[in-house]
Amino acid sequence: MGKYRKREGLFLAEGVRCVEQILENGIVTVEELLLDKTAGDISFLKRFDVPVYELESEDFLSISDTENSQGIIAVCQIPFEANVDELVLSEGVIIATDAIQDPGNLGTMIRTASWFDASGIIFGTGTVDSFHPKVVRSTAGATGRLAYQSGDLSKMINEFEEHGWDIVLMDRGEGSINLKEVVPDRRTLIVVGNEGRGITGKLFTSTRKKVRIDGKSEAVESLNAAVATSIALYHFAKV
Amino acid sequence: MGKYRKREGLFLAEGVRCVEQILENGIVTVEELLLDKTAGDISFLKRFDVPVYELESEDFLSISDTENSQGIIAVCQIPFEANVDELVLSEGVIIATDAIQDPGNLGTMIRTASWFDASGIIFGTGTVDSFHPKVVRSTAGATGRLAYQSGDLSKMINEFEEHGWDIVLMDRGEGSINLKEVVPDRRTLIVVGNEGRGITGKLFTSTRKKVRIDGKSEAVESLNAAVATSIALYHFAKV
Repeated sequence: MGKYRKREGLFLAEGVRCVEQILENGIVTVEELLLDKTAGDISFLKRFDVPVYELESEDFLSISDTENSQGIIAVCQIPFEANVDELVLSEGVIIATDAIQDPGNLGTMIRTASWFDASGIIFGTGTVDSFHPKVVRSTAGATGRLAYQSGDLSKMINEFEEHGWDIVLMDRGEGSINLKEVVPDRRTLIVVGNEGRGITGKLFTSTRKKVRIDGKSEAVESLNAAVATSIALYHFAKV
Repeated sequence: MGKYRKREGLFLAEGVRCVEQILENGIVTVEELLLDKTAGDISFLKRFDVPVYELESEDFLSISDTENSQGIIAVCQIPFEANVDELVLSEGVIIATDAIQDPGNLGTMIRTASWFDASGIIFGTGTVDSFHPKVVRSTAGATGRLAYQSGDLSKMINEFEEHGWDIVLMDRGEGSINLKEVVPDRRTLIVVGNEGRGITGKLFTSTRKKVRIDGKSEAVESLNAAVATSIALYHFAKV
């Protein structure tokens, strides 16, 4: 399915709540719904004007990516990328992911960023495909809500900085500031590093804040990447 | 493996970082380490006094619960439960889970609660087994750090309340207060509901606070349960 998705510019969203949320959001174009013939009540779909195809269970399961399928998949168009030139002109909070690899983490970040009404999200090189079915599932229907761009973080962050954005690197290294002491700016770009090795060295410059979330690091090495991002969003977002 | 674990009072922790963290914490008794013969460098283990058994890959993989095993499993003793009678005499923040079902969510809650130095965690009836391998993996080695008790939440919450604890129900219903406006008490019990249906009705009483995390609920129905818990921990914990 991966190759098919890429070639056609499509992604798949699975599960009743996820599909319903995407339909309700009305931002992503849903081309068609695929249903398992043996699935339960899907009468909630009647209010949406989308072609529905019922498949034999065997065929449905060959497309499904989940272990316990709920018998519904939306085939959706991948939304166009935004442009950094436009994103830098916005306000609020934007997330930048530096090689986030776990699909569940990335999906949770997108979900939380949507909840806190982030102005966008930037997927740095090395970040897992944000339209991977596992990522989409973890967004709980938030996929497509946020303006996004993929590419080289270093260049894009520079552009944000030139436009007066406060660059916050989530990092507990020397000289870092406790999140609770950071006063939110009108425009904040939060950079989150890879689950294992953190933020790439070249992204650290003297003009950028290193921000940490204080905790008992002898109990556990770090917070989960999606959790740390969510706490930062809670702190910086003005919802 | 499930039955074996239960009968013997053992749990399994997998992965280099997770095992190392558990050994370093020194709270959980590690009975033995199982290694895949083809695993990589495990020289970091030499400083710990634990019996090590090398297994053929086939045997190792029959025990492993992970898709991409790192070739190391610690066989650990399940720590004894604490007693609510003791927990109510402590201070700080305690988490209570009301039927949390996703192992990744529960593990992440334990990990975050350990980071924020929570005084304990209470697993309400219907919560997934906290020593399930998938939960243990998500704790990133924090398993065993926190005093815990499993059982009927209703009774236990009453006991906390009688001892002067502030009971915070994470719920966005009518009369709920924005988390940012809640002044942390010296003793806070944070109750988190099931991923789908929230907190059980009978746990709501007039003496307990309903607390919400404000967000754009038309974009996505809710925050992930572990994320909401983590944000509440960030707010209430005094680390």
